[in-house]
Amino acid sequence: MIGFDHISKIVQRTDSKIVLFVMDGLGGLPHPETGRTELETARTPNLDKVAAESICGLIDPVSPGITPGSGPGHLSLFGYAPLKYEIGRGVLEALGIGVELKEEDVAARGNFCTVDTEGRISDRRAGRISTEKNQELCRLLSGIKVAGVELVVAPVKEHRFVLLLRGKKLSGDLIDSDPQHVGLAPLPVKAVSSSAETTARLVNEFVVQAKETLRSCHPANMVLLRGFSQLPHWPLMSDVFKLNPAAIASYPMYRGLARLVGMKVLATGGTLAEEMATLRQHYSEHDFFFLHVKQTDSRGEDGDFQAKVKAIEEIDAYLPELLSLKPDVLMVTGDHSTPATLASHSWHPVPFMLRSHWCRPDHVREFNESACAQGAMGRFPSVEIMTLALANALKLDKFGA
Amino acid sequence: MIGFDHISKIVQRTDSKIVLFVMDGLGGLPHPETGRTELETARTPNLDKVAAESICGLIDPVSPGITPGSGPGHLSLFGYAPLKYEIGRGVLEALGIGVELKEEDVAARGNFCTVDTEGRISDRRAGRISTEKNQELCRLLSGIKVAGVELVVAPVKEHRFVLLLRGKKLSGDLIDSDPQHVGLAPLPVKAVSSSAETTARLVNEFVVQAKETLRSCHPANMVLLRGFSQLPHWPLMSDVFKLNPAAIASYPMYRGLARLVGMKVLATGGTLAEEMATLRQHYSEHDFFFLHVKQTDSRGEDGDFQAKVKAIEEIDAYLPELLSLKPDVLMVTGDHSTPATLASHSWHPVPFMLRSHWCRPDHVREFNESACAQGAMGRFPSVEIMTLALANALKLDKFGA
Repeated sequence: MIGFDHISKIVQRTDSKIVLFVMDGLGGLPHPETGRTELETARTPNLDKVAAESICGLIDPVSPGITPGSGPGHLSLFGYAPLKYEIGRGVLEALGIGVELKEEDVAARGNFCTVDTEGRISDRRAGRISTEKNQELCRLLSGIKVAGVELVVAPVKEHRFVLLLRGKKLSGDLIDSDPQHVGLAPLPVKAVSSSAETTARLVNEFVVQAKETLRSCHPANMVLLRGFSQLPHWPLMSDVFKLNPAAIASYPMYRGLARLVGMKVLATGGTLAEEMATLRQHYSEHDFFFLHVKQTDSRGEDGDFQAKVKAIEEIDAYLPELLSLKPDVLMVTGDHSTPATLASHSWHPVPFMLRSHWCRPDHVREFNESACAQGAMGRFPSVEIMTLALANALKLDKFGA
Repeated sequence: MIGFDHISKIVQRTDSKIVLFVMDGLGGLPHPETGRTELETARTPNLDKVAAESICGLIDPVSPGITPGSGPGHLSLFGYAPLKYEIGRGVLEALGIGVELKEEDVAARGNFCTVDTEGRISDRRAGRISTEKNQELCRLLSGIKVAGVELVVAPVKEHRFVLLLRGKKLSGDLIDSDPQHVGLAPLPVKAVSSSAETTARLVNEFVVQAKETLRSCHPANMVLLRGFSQLPHWPLMSDVFKLNPAAIASYPMYRGLARLVGMKVLATGGTLAEEMATLRQHYSEHDFFFLHVKQTDSRGEDGDFQAKVKAIEEIDAYLPELLSLKPDVLMVTGDHSTPATLASHSWHPVPFMLRSHWCRPDHVREFNESACAQGAMGRFPSVEIMTLALANALKLDKFGA
């Protein structure tokens, strides 16, 4: 695959516009009774019409057989090699709940856990306490003061929370306190490099106070911390691709991921109708739009096949509005598959189509897994779609004379 | 992809013969009225017959979305990873006009440009002077003498020329004199490494005299130099693939590229009939032939759809003669696409077919973009075709016991 160093030398800023429409968790698996996937079951006249004018294929977000999380799934769509551009777990968790991270912040993923009278872990998830209980405990922990650093304790779901340290000269170069096994005591947090020793001390002070604060809160009477990390310093899309990119997404995770690669995150509502209105409103201001809908993934995670079919059909109805903006390049795909029969993310490649005046359409007439498998793009890594989009937008010069 | 180190360990010299038939700029885009590409429009009974006996696919010269120049386009067909084996612009320009380069020669690409009375560039291309004017100015510049080095100034097209320095201990480690922007003065050529300091001084002496010589030649009253480079030292096909390769091509660029990888360049005429006669005449002397036709690319660059169709049909008529030589492996493909509708090289993958006794033919019955998209080879990098050819010629041992 061609790297950022090469791309940045041959890319030109032009007026042409690219829209990347991501239906989260788009790919599926056949329903056991019909043998048809969610996409193959849904009535999608508009997506099918676009497919007939597109070049189609199946994309692998990370590598064949690898089930991606939301981070790698999206980064590869943005052109960032997901095995190279890894995000720390703490940072990803913070992005997921919309905690805004500053330059030197250190974020960790926290678990409430249960320890016995001798301080040994008996349940790493504290019996998966309710999210409400979690919120209550996070409020308690927010009272903790450690000199020299500002602390944020923010609830996620069930037993999970985010710990944020804000201050000067902090470092995420720390080893987890979570020993990953019951029967062991939580570990003191250790610095991997000498520059992280102060941060390690601050975190350990927090843990001591947290233990004290939670003493009577059985089963959630202790915390485990892991994935200490800071915002990565990555090349921005504006530098690498000479784009002025914008993101339209209502969930914090995708807004955060877009910000990491330098997209402007536009204010928008939670429905696709509102997202479309945002796209229309800002269409003249940017040359790249990442438009994200979550419903396909959520219904897949629910294991609700028919609800995912319905979500796809509802999204299909918005295609004419999207097309009316006449993007020079339109890509429709997903960040990974979320088959309702698995009720989770999966490794299956994702249907992909790209429509442009120069795309050399293939014979695919429907937008779904089996049709796209016959597409002229074949099966290829998701990370290559950005180069393809730039080419189709006529933004790339020749490589080599 | 498997590298030269691995290939060279398992390849064996045998009597089997491989022919790589390159139709330059072969791939196309649909005609807006018919929806069919140049290849899909042309009547090609002979190519189609070969397709029916071949394994087919679509190849990406550099990477999906990347439009290759002639250099990377051909190097990948020869098995040389185009992002690794990069050719300097000066060398490539010299190859393109058939200037024969020696070991220590330094070549640069030159532009005639216009400078104002204060020496600042007002037109980087001197109003794209005619090629005749260019030839006249190159004759003038050829009169320049610089002690310690032999100089060659050779015209290319319009405002472009090649400057060649021939002498001892020269180095191409130099920074361009072309500032790439109007309003700035040409830069003195600077050495990047200390070994290039003498060469920098020699080039700057040439530039001073060139400015003086061209003083009254407005608009072409100055020169800009860039892409200083020397012949690369690459592994040769005879070493890596244990082949005794020959090239049959009438254009200097392709003859030069073939020489870079160690092919013997056979004398031939400018028509395909003459090239075929050359192939027949030397068929017993080599085990690999690179046969190149330019017309498909030229008509594509002209933007003349029908003329490209006609060129394809004319080439098709020569297939029976080629087949009568009974090559053990015949590959037919292009170095890149040159769609007439774009009138330039493009990023679109190129139809590919390989016919041999051992190729495991697929169901493709026509040689064109959409048929090859259904081929059993799928879509794959051009750089892999050489390994495939060697395998089909039964020249490769097992990898691993």
